Amino acid sequence: MLIDIKGKDIICTQELSISEIRALLKLSKEMKSDRFGEKYSSLLKNQTFLMFFFNPSLRTRISFEAAATELGGHAQFLEPKTMRLKKTSKGVEVQAGETIEDAARVLDRYGCGMGIRILETSVENYGDGNAILREYARWMKAPIINMADDKYHPCQGLSDIMGMQEHRGELKSKTVLMTWAHSSLARSYCSVHEHLLISSRLGMNVRLAYPKGYDLPEEEISRVKENCQKNGTSFQIFHDPDEAYTGDVEFVYSRNWFGPDFYEIGKEAEIFRASKMTDWICTGERMSRTNNALFIHPMPVDRGKEVTDEVASGPDSIIVDIAENRLHTQKAIMAMTIAGLKVDV
Amino acid sequence: MLIDIKGKDIICTQELSISEIRALLKLSKEMKSDRFGEKYSSLLKNQTFLMFFFNPSLRTRISFEAAATELGGHAQFLEPKTMRLKKTSKGVEVQAGETIEDAARVLDRYGCGMGIRILETSVENYGDGNAILREYARWMKAPIINMADDKYHPCQGLSDIMGMQEHRGELKSKTVLMTWAHSSLARSYCSVHEHLLISSRLGMNVRLAYPKGYDLPEEEISRVKENCQKNGTSFQIFHDPDEAYTGDVEFVYSRNWFGPDFYEIGKEAEIFRASKMTDWICTGERMSRTNNALFIHPMPVDRGKEVTDEVASGPDSIIVDIAENRLHTQKAIMAMTIAGLKVDV
Amino acid sequence: MLIDIKGKDIICTQELSISEIRALLKLSKEMKSDRFGEKYSSLLKNQTFLMFFFNPSLRTRISFEAAATELGGHAQFLEPKTMRLKKTSKGVEVQAGETIEDAARVLDRYGCGMGIRILETSVENYGDGNAILREYARWMKAPIINMADDKYHPCQGLSDIMGMQEHRGELKSKTVLMTWAHSSLARSYCSVHEHLLISSRLGMNVRLAYPKGYDLPEEEISRVKENCQKNGTSFQIFHDPDEAYTGDVEFVYSRNWFGPDFYEIGKEAEIFRASKMTDWICTGERMSRTNNALFIHPMPVDRGKEVTDEVASGPDSIIVDIAENRLHTQKAIMAMTIAGLKVDV
Repeated sequence: MLIDIKGKDIICTQELSISEIRALLKLSKEMKSDRFGEKYSSLLKNQTFLMFFFNPSLRTRISFEAAATELGGHAQFLEPKTMRLKKTSKGVEVQAGETIEDAARVLDRYGCGMGIRILETSVENYGDGNAILREYARWMKAPIINMADDKYHPCQGLSDIMGMQEHRGELKSKTVLMTWAHSSLARSYCSVHEHLLISSRLGMNVRLAYPKGYDLPEEEISRVKENCQKNGTSFQIFHDPDEAYTGDVEFVYSRNWFGPDFYEIGKEAEIFRASKMTDWICTGERMSRTNNALFIHPMPVDRGKEVTDEVASGPDSIIVDIAENRLHTQKAIMAMTIAGLKVDV
Repeated sequence: MLIDIKGKDIICTQELSISEIRALLKLSKEMKSDRFGEKYSSLLKNQTFLMFFFNPSLRTRISFEAAATELGGHAQFLEPKTMRLKKTSKGVEVQAGETIEDAARVLDRYGCGMGIRILETSVENYGDGNAILREYARWMKAPIINMADDKYHPCQGLSDIMGMQEHRGELKSKTVLMTWAHSSLARSYCSVHEHLLISSRLGMNVRLAYPKGYDLPEEEISRVKENCQKNGTSFQIFHDPDEAYTGDVEFVYSRNWFGPDFYEIGKEAEIFRASKMTDWICTGERMSRTNNALFIHPMPVDRGKEVTDEVASGPDSIIVDIAENRLHTQKAIMAMTIAGLKVDV
Repeated sequence: MLIDIKGKDIICTQELSISEIRALLKLSKEMKSDRFGEKYSSLLKNQTFLMFFFNPSLRTRISFEAAATELGGHAQFLEPKTMRLKKTSKGVEVQAGETIEDAARVLDRYGCGMGIRILETSVENYGDGNAILREYARWMKAPIINMADDKYHPCQGLSDIMGMQEHRGELKSKTVLMTWAHSSLARSYCSVHEHLLISSRLGMNVRLAYPKGYDLPEEEISRVKENCQKNGTSFQIFHDPDEAYTGDVEFVYSRNWFGPDFYEIGKEAEIFRASKMTDWICTGERMSRTNNALFIHPMPVDRGKEVTDEVASGPDSIIVDIAENRLHTQKAIMAMTIAGLKVDV
């Protein structure tokens, strides 16, 4: 089957078909094995990919900009502070400026595609970031690529899967443990949601461990459950930092996320609460009880809190490989959605 | 006639000959119709265009950077805050640093050309921005392109004309209405001046409407009058928000500008004063009294103040086309002044 | 002898062999004489060079970004504020974030090389900048290029020598005077150290003049002395602003640097102290007593303090040529260390 997703917005992998996901993963791996080959090096020749950062980032900015360069194009770095945009709070205009409609319709004339990153600190309520991203998508014909919003992070999810497949082959029926960890970073849901969605979608058994009170949004958990049901796999929730590390776990994803009341209580209170739960950490001892599980994480890692140095720098940590994969999955997304490259799966 | 403007600074269209303006417009349209063709895609290969932003901008930064990319080159984004420049206030040094002579002579060695954007909030007195821009031009052999200063905006003026021609053909003897509008943005003169100068230069009848007290600098108005006299066209001034919308108007340009005392009273006072004149707005009713006039504006638009949503998003609004033209006129300027492309007119 | 330094970090010219220095200078000159030729224009095709700026800069950022462009690649501009890095003060974590190990290992996957600029205002103690740079080098296989740290500035040193050779041919046995000057900029040592090291290394006689109390770090002075001893050249120190300008001096490098207690007393106190020593300035009268000496300086120049306008803008000032050379030496470094170009010397 020849997959063609030219012009498609990439907002969450859950909105792609399984075949589209497989096509993107296949192309990502081909691009990794022939990184600077002629085959892909002019796909975006003379073209401009726009990167719109409401929130800063290391991996996302560098990897998207490098992706455009490796495809022969150029990525521009945009921040809202230099863009004279209209701002509203609770529906009231607090800063005069340009509407999304106007900004987006012009951006559409200049760029061949646009990435947007908009997380919790740039929005007032959960979901606003995703909504703003979709509002840009509404006004632009060029593909919008989600570079992480407050709900989803498709490039990270694809990179996780790619790394897991590279190290362990077919993932069907293998088990991943996603566990909450303490941290002083009060982290967003997007990478966690995306990972749960795509791993359950592709046939993995999913375990979710977190302290009582740290439930993820019901909307996303329902989707994960549904994905597991369709695939006949298991989905289990644990409220203990220790017991989910058992002999069938092949991947451990230990990462902080903030509580459901984060948008009301704010960052300071969240960090104060989370920092006390120091038993929620991925350790070598815990890893030793698994099926030689690999440690995965979207980085940056809060070492000593989310995971010990021993595990993060150890031989079973594939976090740097996954970070590298961001480059390749993003090249694949740009090649397919912008340049219209078709992939046979 | 073969037009060659290699090495020429582009500071205001009034300083170009009519033939040079026609050559730039001709090339801009050719570039638009063959945007990614081979013909222009390597004109700036391996070369660096410098973009020096004293003031931020959406369209200008993105469109110049994209222009360089589409010509095969690369545009660098520079801001004074990262440049350790000397600063003076009323002739006294307030920050030690590098002189314009030293900075410019070095920039001239690195770049193939430089754009400068310097508007009212970056300068103390009207005209200082234009003077600083000319000071850089004095020390650099590479062409300086005005990306908007406190007086002029040649790329915007060319883009306005290009859009108007695309939609209505030959402009000679057609009538444009430039009307002041209320806003909470306290806007600079440059786009307004440039439009009045270039449209009068190319043989249009010009109408100017604004509240008493919002006179534009006499120096520019004299030039516009002189342009009209030479072409045998009319120039009229109105002080009413309504009466200038009549059956011979084919283009309406409704936009705010600050009063002549802006540099003394400051932004807050200007906005307070301007915001009360809510009758100064371009509405569908007013447009309906014209000769099917097109709505033009350099964007960003202050919707609900400068113009109603109905007009700005309506079928007779060509603002997005004009914004797109910024890319093409800037490519044409760079191709002719930097790469030395000659155009037959 | 064919010189191959592929993969080598460039931290200080003192850590390169004389042949490696000669190879870089030879290639720099070839690149200058054939700036946009085909020979070097695709060496970094589709590749990303990372520029990590802890401190801002004019020449360094523009010249490195232009260098990558002229080699067919792309340079990315990174700042720590957008990178969510861990910060420590006196060994204690003051900001949660990513470790250098984690950041560097990921950057290594994306970029073909990385430049780092980290000067005194970004570090707490002398030497910390150089240590952080070496820490990145430790974790990255891709070459690290020092874009100026608190100790060294190899690209500037090479550019100084290149400019001096262009104007005066072979430098062996010629005399350079490095003299302290007053300024309100409280400047770092790196350019001064690098110049003293490379000029003594290449067989020049070195004179150093500065007010009592403005000694440079003993570690570097020892190295300079050792270089001179090996070459049988002279090294002299003066504590007078005037007497070192004599008939055998062929190059004068007049520039401010801060005192050894700068990290304790801070910038304000340093500037207050230095500003009073107004007799420490390079003047036309002093230059007239030399052997037609050329004025050199790494720029930005603090005119009227480090040097008079007469000298800085005069016919014997080669500061702009040296600034241009930054571009060429950096292209040569990137071509040899990243693209693996070999040079016969």
